[in-house]
Amino acid sequence: MIQLSPRCRRLVCVKCSAEYPPDGTLMTCTRCGLTGILDVEYDLSNLPPADSFLRVLQGRAPNMWRYAEMLPVVPDLPEHFLRVGLSPLYESERMAQDLGVGRFYVKDDTLSPTASSKDRASAVAVVMARKANQQVVACASTGNAASSLAGMAAFAGLGAVIMVPARAPAPKVAQLRMYGAKVLRIEADYSTTWDLCQQTIERHGWYNRNCAINPFLMEGKKTTGLEIGEQLARQPIDWVAVSVGDGCTIAGIAKGLRQMVEIGMLPSMPRMLGAQAEGAAPVYRAWRGEPLPTAAETFADSIAVSVPRNLTKAVNAVKGSNGALVTVSDDQIRHDMRVLPRLSGVFVEPAAAATVAGVREAVRQGIIKPADKVVAVMTGNGLKDIASATAVAGEAPYVKANLDAIESALSEEP
Amino acid sequence: MIQLSPRCRRLVCVKCSAEYPPDGTLMTCTRCGLTGILDVEYDLSNLPPADSFLRVLQGRAPNMWRYAEMLPVVPDLPEHFLRVGLSPLYESERMAQDLGVGRFYVKDDTLSPTASSKDRASAVAVVMARKANQQVVACASTGNAASSLAGMAAFAGLGAVIMVPARAPAPKVAQLRMYGAKVLRIEADYSTTWDLCQQTIERHGWYNRNCAINPFLMEGKKTTGLEIGEQLARQPIDWVAVSVGDGCTIAGIAKGLRQMVEIGMLPSMPRMLGAQAEGAAPVYRAWRGEPLPTAAETFADSIAVSVPRNLTKAVNAVKGSNGALVTVSDDQIRHDMRVLPRLSGVFVEPAAAATVAGVREAVRQGIIKPADKVVAVMTGNGLKDIASATAVAGEAPYVKANLDAIESALSEEP
Repeated sequence: MIQLSPRCRRLVCVKCSAEYPPDGTLMTCTRCGLTGILDVEYDLSNLPPADSFLRVLQGRAPNMWRYAEMLPVVPDLPEHFLRVGLSPLYESERMAQDLGVGRFYVKDDTLSPTASSKDRASAVAVVMARKANQQVVACASTGNAASSLAGMAAFAGLGAVIMVPARAPAPKVAQLRMYGAKVLRIEADYSTTWDLCQQTIERHGWYNRNCAINPFLMEGKKTTGLEIGEQLARQPIDWVAVSVGDGCTIAGIAKGLRQMVEIGMLPSMPRMLGAQAEGAAPVYRAWRGEPLPTAAETFADSIAVSVPRNLTKAVNAVKGSNGALVTVSDDQIRHDMRVLPRLSGVFVEPAAAATVAGVREAVRQGIIKPADKVVAVMTGNGLKDIASATAVAGEAPYVKANLDAIESALSEEP
Repeated sequence: MIQLSPRCRRLVCVKCSAEYPPDGTLMTCTRCGLTGILDVEYDLSNLPPADSFLRVLQGRAPNMWRYAEMLPVVPDLPEHFLRVGLSPLYESERMAQDLGVGRFYVKDDTLSPTASSKDRASAVAVVMARKANQQVVACASTGNAASSLAGMAAFAGLGAVIMVPARAPAPKVAQLRMYGAKVLRIEADYSTTWDLCQQTIERHGWYNRNCAINPFLMEGKKTTGLEIGEQLARQPIDWVAVSVGDGCTIAGIAKGLRQMVEIGMLPSMPRMLGAQAEGAAPVYRAWRGEPLPTAAETFADSIAVSVPRNLTKAVNAVKGSNGALVTVSDDQIRHDMRVLPRLSGVFVEPAAAATVAGVREAVRQGIIKPADKVVAVMTGNGLKDIASATAVAGEAPYVKANLDAIESALSEEP
């Protein structure tokens, strides 16, 4: 048994509503099995009034552990932890104008130790693993979850085992190995790799870092929503937008926002906008009641998910906030990969640009209105996928080494 | 004339000691020309006592503009600026043990908007350019200075013109173009490109972002030293280490630390340790009074400098702090590219790993003593040079898709 924060009241299965005591060793619902994802419930009834609580928060260190009252665990020395959370929130007037919305904010999670939002979940994972006296944390993934686990485990002095499908790109594998993770390239696709990893984790009794299995990871992801609530305290927000892959991130952010409404920090629940790639849109289709696709086709690898492991929570997050989902083409994503850094100075990977493209699409469809105030969550740094950036950026002109050639090139370049 | 902060007293040529009034439009010494680099002097005599000033600082927003009293300029709305500065300072006991020093701190400038320390200088550049009503900022560079200028200019709504030598790697050019910078690949080497850029800047009257010409950029770099002084306030620090290319960074950090000593925030001036690559060590040789090399051979591209443009300030920073310089081989750099992320969770580019390797070398030579307290400044993110990381990380094993093969691979991997 792992003792959770005293405010954690119980764990509830999102599928069958079975209730469990707040024990940090529990993973999925014992009745429903692996698809019975649990949700952590809190008692926030006797927190200080919002204005006082805001002042308390503002006196705390600038990281995700500032929300101790709303988290299952915190590290023993939060101020010594890698700096995860309280990422900047920038307002961009030029982006608002370009998108045709009233106000536009960039929540910049690209400035995280391993350069993605996933650090928030991996940070909770390593703290939980330590409390459980586990020495090894494991997951199957080729992407940001893997690198964030590798980085957080290295910091915490834990071993990390990561299984990737054989075709995982070399630079992503390199980052994992640099953090000292034990990386196995399994000669199989992602789905088989995931199953084999799950079995190996069970056999060895390692700590499981998988958002779809481990209910506490979403509590880390939730902090993006808590921060938006603190950073725009007492102000109405019309929309909070984020791209959707497995569904964990949008569900986590919605949960954080809802808790901020519950304690009076936000006047009302913002509507959640989920953006999916046209070729990988199972959550969008589930939300519309359409049959699910079987393939995932998009260059935005962080959201190229055919079987979203947190479908229920994601659809609930959108429906429960009176929100919406839209799909965007890879060309729309490429367009906003260029526009966002140009107008705001924030350079993002394709999956994050999909969020901006989703806002643009929602404006086009009349879902987002011209006066609306929109927060867009940027989940991954552009440096994470420099190959896609290079393809999108195109070639710079070669210029002869004299001043006349330079002048002529300057007048030609846009 | 650009009005500077009222505490800026004068500008002084580091070569001939000529004095100039504090005018933000001045670049180099009019007597000495381009090599007459100016230093900005302040009157810090009537700041509050250190303890009170520390409390004042701690109440300010977590960015470099918190040191307004010690900067030439601040933006009109510092809280709306991209979050540059107040980067984390992590203590790593495992690194201290591995290196054989008393205490070891990582100053993590990799968590900056464009992922390097250079953002601190570029931030000052765009604020100065705006005050001068300039619309375009320019530089010649292929590295972190260029990307930070491109990012900060995009944020500030200024144009950026960047000239790179033709052989600049495509991913670095891509990042510049994504930020919307106008990039010209000049069919020449770096030195010729630099000269042509300087002439084009003069012809067009653009704002010059070049640490070796523009004296105000070092005031941005200084903030790393100011922050170390705040983060370890009142504590003695034996060494502050950083790798050395052009020499601007080590000189800036030393200046910041010295100002923190001047106002009583630090009890004494730490000794500066400069690390250079064996094959690109002009500052090391100048410090030892040896003839300068003509070539720069190292894979650590951010410090591959044959003609350091701030040689004088760099040597003064080391000598004036009773510090030292060491050289490290590319193999030593590769070694610490692996050790640092494994033991601390901070993933860095080769030039930053050179700093760690330099500390290790200084311990080996007996320059740094086993009880010493050392701060190492990590200037660039590992994602900046994923090609080098991939080369260093080596291949992960391919494993057949069954549990027995996985068990056997797990027992073989270190």
